[in-house]
Amino acid sequence: MLEFKLLNQENQARRGQLKTAHGLINTPAFMPVGTVGTVKAMTVESVASTGAEILLGNTYHLMLRPGAERVANFGGLHKFMNWDKPILTDSGGFQVMSLSGLRKITEEGVKFQSHLSGESFFLSPERSMEIQNLLDADITMAFDECVKYPSSRKKVEESMRRSMRWAKRSKESFKNRDGYGLFGIVQGGMFQDLRMESVNALKEIGFDGYAIGGLAVGEGQEKMFEVLDYTAPALPNNKPRYLMGVGRPSDIVGSVARGVDMFDCVMPTRSGRTGQAFTSTGVINIRNAKYMDDHESLDKECTCPLCKHYTRGYLHHLFRSGEILGAMLLTQHNVHFYENLMQQIRVAIEQNKFETFYQEFQEKFAHDRKM
Amino acid sequence: MLEFKLLNQENQARRGQLKTAHGLINTPAFMPVGTVGTVKAMTVESVASTGAEILLGNTYHLMLRPGAERVANFGGLHKFMNWDKPILTDSGGFQVMSLSGLRKITEEGVKFQSHLSGESFFLSPERSMEIQNLLDADITMAFDECVKYPSSRKKVEESMRRSMRWAKRSKESFKNRDGYGLFGIVQGGMFQDLRMESVNALKEIGFDGYAIGGLAVGEGQEKMFEVLDYTAPALPNNKPRYLMGVGRPSDIVGSVARGVDMFDCVMPTRSGRTGQAFTSTGVINIRNAKYMDDHESLDKECTCPLCKHYTRGYLHHLFRSGEILGAMLLTQHNVHFYENLMQQIRVAIEQNKFETFYQEFQEKFAHDRKM
Repeated sequence: MLEFKLLNQENQARRGQLKTAHGLINTPAFMPVGTVGTVKAMTVESVASTGAEILLGNTYHLMLRPGAERVANFGGLHKFMNWDKPILTDSGGFQVMSLSGLRKITEEGVKFQSHLSGESFFLSPERSMEIQNLLDADITMAFDECVKYPSSRKKVEESMRRSMRWAKRSKESFKNRDGYGLFGIVQGGMFQDLRMESVNALKEIGFDGYAIGGLAVGEGQEKMFEVLDYTAPALPNNKPRYLMGVGRPSDIVGSVARGVDMFDCVMPTRSGRTGQAFTSTGVINIRNAKYMDDHESLDKECTCPLCKHYTRGYLHHLFRSGEILGAMLLTQHNVHFYENLMQQIRVAIEQNKFETFYQEFQEKFAHDRKM
Repeated sequence: MLEFKLLNQENQARRGQLKTAHGLINTPAFMPVGTVGTVKAMTVESVASTGAEILLGNTYHLMLRPGAERVANFGGLHKFMNWDKPILTDSGGFQVMSLSGLRKITEEGVKFQSHLSGESFFLSPERSMEIQNLLDADITMAFDECVKYPSSRKKVEESMRRSMRWAKRSKESFKNRDGYGLFGIVQGGMFQDLRMESVNALKEIGFDGYAIGGLAVGEGQEKMFEVLDYTAPALPNNKPRYLMGVGRPSDIVGSVARGVDMFDCVMPTRSGRTGQAFTSTGVINIRNAKYMDDHESLDKECTCPLCKHYTRGYLHHLFRSGEILGAMLLTQHNVHFYENLMQQIRVAIEQNKFETFYQEFQEKFAHDRKM
């Protein structure tokens, strides 16, 4: 059971609060990705300092290594990784499809080989619920299948209907506790009627929140917004909505405008390791030679440690030299940028100024396709 | 001109204080290595939190990338890397010999190729002084040659005498300023008379401190201590003594007992990236499978963030998963261990209990050759 409160709504954009066993989450919220029990290149203290109120953990990765039972013996994922705020875990379904070796999908579940060891594993709605319970996730995701894009209507339909049967089994085996909740996942590809069928199936089962899956898989922003335009408003108004695996800042702002409350993406962290920096004037690659003698801070509007204490030239030097500190500082900056964006979004909605904020954002970054 | 004060002496062990332009250094001191303007995998805040009062920077690495003139344009190495405490830079001599490609040594200096780009560079006493001045090093090292071990007496003698001529040229071109100092480097291999000749040559030139070079090059601890036994007491009593590139904790404790005041070594930082942990009960490799389910902290006597908040099992998991956070946490722990050891050494000498400390240390780690 999770408590969700809508504090304000401006058109479709929502400002809310989600109460979990490990604390409050202010929405719209961005969840940094802590794949195997660490947000890559960040300490938990630096994650918290960005304003992040919830992390995402990956069931698939954690079940392979170190193993869900082992994490449970350490007192759950929060204790294991020393993060005392909320954690959402995905169901493992997405990564079984994208990362594992040989796999066989049946009505019962998915048998697959670990991409690390080749060892055989089995995931089903029941086992996924068990694992997420062992990890002590505040928010558990229903076990689903995410089909490739593009896929035939027939394939999408079959897969979505199986995911809905799995959603029901997920609900049945989820151990309901105060402060812990289960989210269902809407599938149906780019087909409006299938999305609506999925939404209705999930609503009938009843969840603590509703995720929109099967997007940001290569369809492009326009198509993604199109799906959100009809999917989000069909979801229960009094429950949080989570767009999985999204995305660039412009994806997030546009999705908030369409009624989404929660996001996760590896983009700020992965970019932080490759030298791609999100700034208030757009995305830059710090490895570019033109930053070699740049004495300015990365982003004058940013208050993160990197922007307060270092020059672009120094950061450039760290990346050119392959120094770990480059990844550490830039990852923190990027996550700080994302969390600061969410904070601006939340304030804008509170003040009924989100529509203006959205327009200004679009104008400002019209020519920067990476934003 | 640097001010060095001896606060206490117990047999050969010395407790002192060295005053530089960027602050006080309490000796015996350990200097973490910040090769190219960063202590690998650490923020400067976490370096400072270990108690480190001075860092070492590498002239060779910094002259190749980003370049000494460039660092000077950024306001010097302190500003470039955001470290406001003292910095000592080596002269480049050692790494020209060990890292660069084709090189040619003449009386004038060394012409060599960058190991990064193949580009040609030239280092001489005059250029080394210029570079270290551009970097704004509080402590500048004289330009010298460090011969391989073992080398013939003839080779060691020739090289040492050239290094002494270079030491004189270093002194002549060093720009003396208040709070900045120049250290000479004793060479002479494992030959007592050559070491003495080198000591006398340096004393005649006159330096702010005296380093002992050409040790920890494969000769073993016993031989190294033998050289220290006759070299250290021959150095001026009122100047700091620095044993370059040393070492393991037992090397350091034994060298303090022989009258050394300053040390630098990549061991705590390099080990921190490979999973080798220094603890109060010895050295362990955290990647070992036996730590997989270990719920204890790495070192119960340690107060670093790793030991306060995480288990050995979690650290093991991070290293097995190749996560950057593993290197970040363990590097900080290892540097913390070294700095804490120096603090214990300083307190022991202050209280005239260093001899006891040394004996207990030797008994405790008699069977751990990595210590």
